[in-house]
Amino acid sequence: MKAVQVIEYDEPPALVDVPDPQVTGPLDVIVKIGGAGVCRTDLHILEGQWKDKSGVTLPYTIGHENAGWVAEVGQAVTHVKVGDPVILHPLVTCGLCRACRAGDDVHCMNSAFPGIDTHGGYAEYLKTSARSVVPLAPSLEPASVAALADAGLTAYHAVAKAARVLRPGDRAVVIGAGGLGHIGIQVLRALSPVEMIVIDRSPEALALAKELGADHTLIADGSEADRVRELTSGHGAEAVLDFVGEGGAVETGVACLRRNGNYYVIGYGGRLHVPTIDVISTEINFIGNLVGSYNDLSELMVLAAQDKVTLHTQRYPLASFQQALDDLDAGAVRGRAILVP
Amino acid sequence: MKAVQVIEYDEPPALVDVPDPQVTGPLDVIVKIGGAGVCRTDLHILEGQWKDKSGVTLPYTIGHENAGWVAEVGQAVTHVKVGDPVILHPLVTCGLCRACRAGDDVHCMNSAFPGIDTHGGYAEYLKTSARSVVPLAPSLEPASVAALADAGLTAYHAVAKAARVLRPGDRAVVIGAGGLGHIGIQVLRALSPVEMIVIDRSPEALALAKELGADHTLIADGSEADRVRELTSGHGAEAVLDFVGEGGAVETGVACLRRNGNYYVIGYGGRLHVPTIDVISTEINFIGNLVGSYNDLSELMVLAAQDKVTLHTQRYPLASFQQALDDLDAGAVRGRAILVP
Amino acid sequence: MKAVQVIEYDEPPALVDVPDPQVTGPLDVIVKIGGAGVCRTDLHILEGQWKDKSGVTLPYTIGHENAGWVAEVGQAVTHVKVGDPVILHPLVTCGLCRACRAGDDVHCMNSAFPGIDTHGGYAEYLKTSARSVVPLAPSLEPASVAALADAGLTAYHAVAKAARVLRPGDRAVVIGAGGLGHIGIQVLRALSPVEMIVIDRSPEALALAKELGADHTLIADGSEADRVRELTSGHGAEAVLDFVGEGGAVETGVACLRRNGNYYVIGYGGRLHVPTIDVISTEINFIGNLVGSYNDLSELMVLAAQDKVTLHTQRYPLASFQQALDDLDAGAVRGRAILVP
Amino acid sequence: MKAVQVIEYDEPPALVDVPDPQVTGPLDVIVKIGGAGVCRTDLHILEGQWKDKSGVTLPYTIGHENAGWVAEVGQAVTHVKVGDPVILHPLVTCGLCRACRAGDDVHCMNSAFPGIDTHGGYAEYLKTSARSVVPLAPSLEPASVAALADAGLTAYHAVAKAARVLRPGDRAVVIGAGGLGHIGIQVLRALSPVEMIVIDRSPEALALAKELGADHTLIADGSEADRVRELTSGHGAEAVLDFVGEGGAVETGVACLRRNGNYYVIGYGGRLHVPTIDVISTEINFIGNLVGSYNDLSELMVLAAQDKVTLHTQRYPLASFQQALDDLDAGAVRGRAILVP
Repeated sequence: MKAVQVIEYDEPPALVDVPDPQVTGPLDVIVKIGGAGVCRTDLHILEGQWKDKSGVTLPYTIGHENAGWVAEVGQAVTHVKVGDPVILHPLVTCGLCRACRAGDDVHCMNSAFPGIDTHGGYAEYLKTSARSVVPLAPSLEPASVAALADAGLTAYHAVAKAARVLRPGDRAVVIGAGGLGHIGIQVLRALSPVEMIVIDRSPEALALAKELGADHTLIADGSEADRVRELTSGHGAEAVLDFVGEGGAVETGVACLRRNGNYYVIGYGGRLHVPTIDVISTEINFIGNLVGSYNDLSELMVLAAQDKVTLHTQRYPLASFQQALDDLDAGAVRGRAILVP
Repeated sequence: MKAVQVIEYDEPPALVDVPDPQVTGPLDVIVKIGGAGVCRTDLHILEGQWKDKSGVTLPYTIGHENAGWVAEVGQAVTHVKVGDPVILHPLVTCGLCRACRAGDDVHCMNSAFPGIDTHGGYAEYLKTSARSVVPLAPSLEPASVAALADAGLTAYHAVAKAARVLRPGDRAVVIGAGGLGHIGIQVLRALSPVEMIVIDRSPEALALAKELGADHTLIADGSEADRVRELTSGHGAEAVLDFVGEGGAVETGVACLRRNGNYYVIGYGGRLHVPTIDVISTEINFIGNLVGSYNDLSELMVLAAQDKVTLHTQRYPLASFQQALDDLDAGAVRGRAILVP
Repeated sequence: MKAVQVIEYDEPPALVDVPDPQVTGPLDVIVKIGGAGVCRTDLHILEGQWKDKSGVTLPYTIGHENAGWVAEVGQAVTHVKVGDPVILHPLVTCGLCRACRAGDDVHCMNSAFPGIDTHGGYAEYLKTSARSVVPLAPSLEPASVAALADAGLTAYHAVAKAARVLRPGDRAVVIGAGGLGHIGIQVLRALSPVEMIVIDRSPEALALAKELGADHTLIADGSEADRVRELTSGHGAEAVLDFVGEGGAVETGVACLRRNGNYYVIGYGGRLHVPTIDVISTEINFIGNLVGSYNDLSELMVLAAQDKVTLHTQRYPLASFQQALDDLDAGAVRGRAILVP
Repeated sequence: MKAVQVIEYDEPPALVDVPDPQVTGPLDVIVKIGGAGVCRTDLHILEGQWKDKSGVTLPYTIGHENAGWVAEVGQAVTHVKVGDPVILHPLVTCGLCRACRAGDDVHCMNSAFPGIDTHGGYAEYLKTSARSVVPLAPSLEPASVAALADAGLTAYHAVAKAARVLRPGDRAVVIGAGGLGHIGIQVLRALSPVEMIVIDRSPEALALAKELGADHTLIADGSEADRVRELTSGHGAEAVLDFVGEGGAVETGVACLRRNGNYYVIGYGGRLHVPTIDVISTEINFIGNLVGSYNDLSELMVLAAQDKVTLHTQRYPLASFQQALDDLDAGAVRGRAILVP
């Protein structure tokens, strides 16, 4: 089959012929790729930034946001059959460690990460495990949802966690209405009648936020924390969902938070830098968020099938992978770039 | 009555005659003080450190850890009667704001803090509200439990929060086995069969921790995080309870934490200083902790009545207040100093 | 002032002149009634069915679903002022017992129930406590929301409890789309993207349910449990919300429930009658629901202000109380009857 | 190998030679049996009571409470190795359905139950899946803990669920201090400082309950609900753990329950038979309990290794299976009978 592989770091990847993956174990699933998200992480991989962290052996196939159709299954696979449309959870997990046994498969102690440390989805076929395959409703086209597999799943996981403790009348501040943030806004609107205040530097992003259900939008001009205080009778918001995590976002976010409020760290790059007396005197919490679980992804697909979460996608044939990567690097992709084999 | 009042900041307080407090409202309660804890915060108040923060008008009576017997009640008070032994929740709360209505009275939007911003318990009598009065079991002497009213309540609140999510087989690291920490250790042992690892700089504190139920004790010599990793098969602990909050405790504590673990911030003085990527890649949480609620204090008094939480006290007559303060300042108090009118 | 009082049981109530209520305590609030719901319970009171249970002394003023404007307040009342529009929580609670201190004021151990065991709201003014007064958004007219004070609050309480554990992709069966049920449907739609299946005997009620957001409606004809099984791939629903509680509803509801599902008992009249082996072999739960807390009522008023929960009302002048009662008894009220002084 | 098989229903089982089980799949585990609990359910199986329910084909090997040592593993098994002592979760679960993915493996939609619907542990070896194998601490002998695999796990699951919401000062009533109940008492004592009231018909059982940590014991003579009211200031208990579930236990238990209390249904045989008005007016809950999850069993083994949960066992060689069954049937076993191959 055709696959786009990293041959050397700091070199362009190449479209090569590789053997088709084969079912060898009872829980193996071969997926015919219907769409593979092109993500900023792919650019970083090509630059070698993940070299030491992933320890992957070159050449290998990248692509970690994948959806498609089941092409072949091992003998123990019961919940999907050949031809079913599916989206792939980003991790291949063991199902045996204590975390997996608690439903917290993201913290699996023996997981693999296709597209990062093993072969991914920039290809015609991908081999994964039955534990990673989420069936899709017939109305959902794999290429339309592929990019929800990783970025979308992270947003869903954090927002659903927040929504479980938010009540009508509470206020939630969303920092960042970009790639992750605009999915988070849709999820929050679907899960909670909370009053939603969205902060971003871009008027276009804020206009989209409004369309997607934000109650208030605030341009990030240095006054946003003051304006959140005004909107909340001086008290601050019960929750801050920070999809940025750098460049002053944390300071702004903490200043927006109410006593006993929850700060959801989702974006990253900067630092939490908070005196412990501020943490205890207002009794605030900082809640870390990694990607979601298998069941989180199933739930996100329900929202997608209900048209409550949608993504704009720009599609490229697999052979145009370089164009997709170049467009992404140049900021020329509207929504998410998707490779379609 | 006799009361110890702050007359001027940076001057010694004085024992003076003041009018007895009177019941004027239906929920008022006058308490005959049986014991008032002498706390490091009292030294800070006398130095003027709380001047701007509290805005209290001098002269006023200090003492914020109080217990005694009900001496007089307003007409609407139904849950205690004259003569009942009681301990006082440190805050006088409104009962009307949303936080109070949710049982979260610590975040009351209209609270007073006797001994800090209004008259406290270094006196023969104290006026408080029915909402602050927790009845004591007959076996509990007010002077023995007074110091649990604030410091002990903080430790209980944090540890009970942790215990609710800890399971048999989990590991909890307690940083600091001093004033708050040694209460926290007793509470944790009473509430959970978790494996408890205690870290302190003092061998004496660690010996006490062992007596009180610690499973492992580690001297703080720079290698403690490594040793926690060894004790936890390399994974780290599900919870860290940090009663220190300064001087490297946070760095040590974070290094002891397992993926998806909870870091309970209780002590303060230093800073959280953590890259957001570390927060999200391991999905850890930082949980702030202020003093506990009225119901928390009731629960702590149950543990005290069961002899599961005990404090060593050194008692002084009210007139010897200066000796008590001097002993505390000189580090000459074993356990907690208590003024007994 | 004018008030409608029960003079003798089994006699028509009378519109009489009584003294205006007076503020006598610091937390008293006098409310000028803007609307008082006319409820089936009022008919039962008049027939003497509540005589022994309430122990109230005749004559007294009925009316337990009340809203209006603050007319006068005691000196300790801070969260509302004269002229504010308010709705009244049905109970006057003590604020001191353990239940109140936990935010669970419905289980207050010293509560009064205006309109049932003390003077209610079929009158120009009502005296209540600051603890019972929920401020209304300016957009909400007291007469429009009064009937949410008791029936609506019960529905909100149960549905919000269910929504906190329901996830996208779960199914909830609502039994009964009448008075309480049609509020419950609106609340469920506002709080959760769950797939909602509504069962009722009346095609009109089902048509309204569909309008209010039901995904599926099933006429109660004896086949409904089978049809729920069909809609849920044979597994049953994660939650059943039973607003009927009699006449076969429980048997139907249990037959609709999935393994590990929750059955919310809201309506009453019949019996749970279930073999314990069925409870344990499928590990189902039966969850009781009484009226909601003060904070529940605040949250419901947020949904009302967002137009997510609306009631149809038919208004009568206070002097036409007998007409309202007669219309209710005759089934001639569309929506809820409201007395407007 | 030797195995005890059911040849015909209503006939004695027979010790026969059968082929050793073989590893055929990557997650298979062969366990050398160290102890198999002899349970009343085994008597019922022999009488044919489970014939239709299990649908098992005769002959087959019974025994559903099993522990031993790993004898051989499939290639994908990583968390145990040959020679490790292990206890077996009673179910073999799929790991793929939504329940398994949520950590709720008891509600697996594709499970097998060795000893009930496939070959069990009255044998020298048993074949199971890696998903069912819980490693034991070195201090735990398989024959000593085997009987915790099913009965003990059920008790742990229910009690741990209750303990998560009980607070110091709450009261829990345990109905039945027999086989399951006396394990439940030990678990409750290990997990919570709640005030524990135990009810049983047998003075010997109550004496044991007291030894294991009960605070109060009440003989079941018809007055026990009244005495629970006396012990709880007239309010009733926050939790009732019913290990009996028949013969009046439910009526007694409901009469012991406080407003807003939780009734844990564990034993079975009788019926819940409660007017819905009683469920709603006191807002009580009935919580079903089946056997625990894999992680529950891991946690119970932690308590066993801490000597907080112990069982008295009476051991029989495998060849004496008939003696063990006869002794059990005659009520002549003290503690639990265990077959040791």
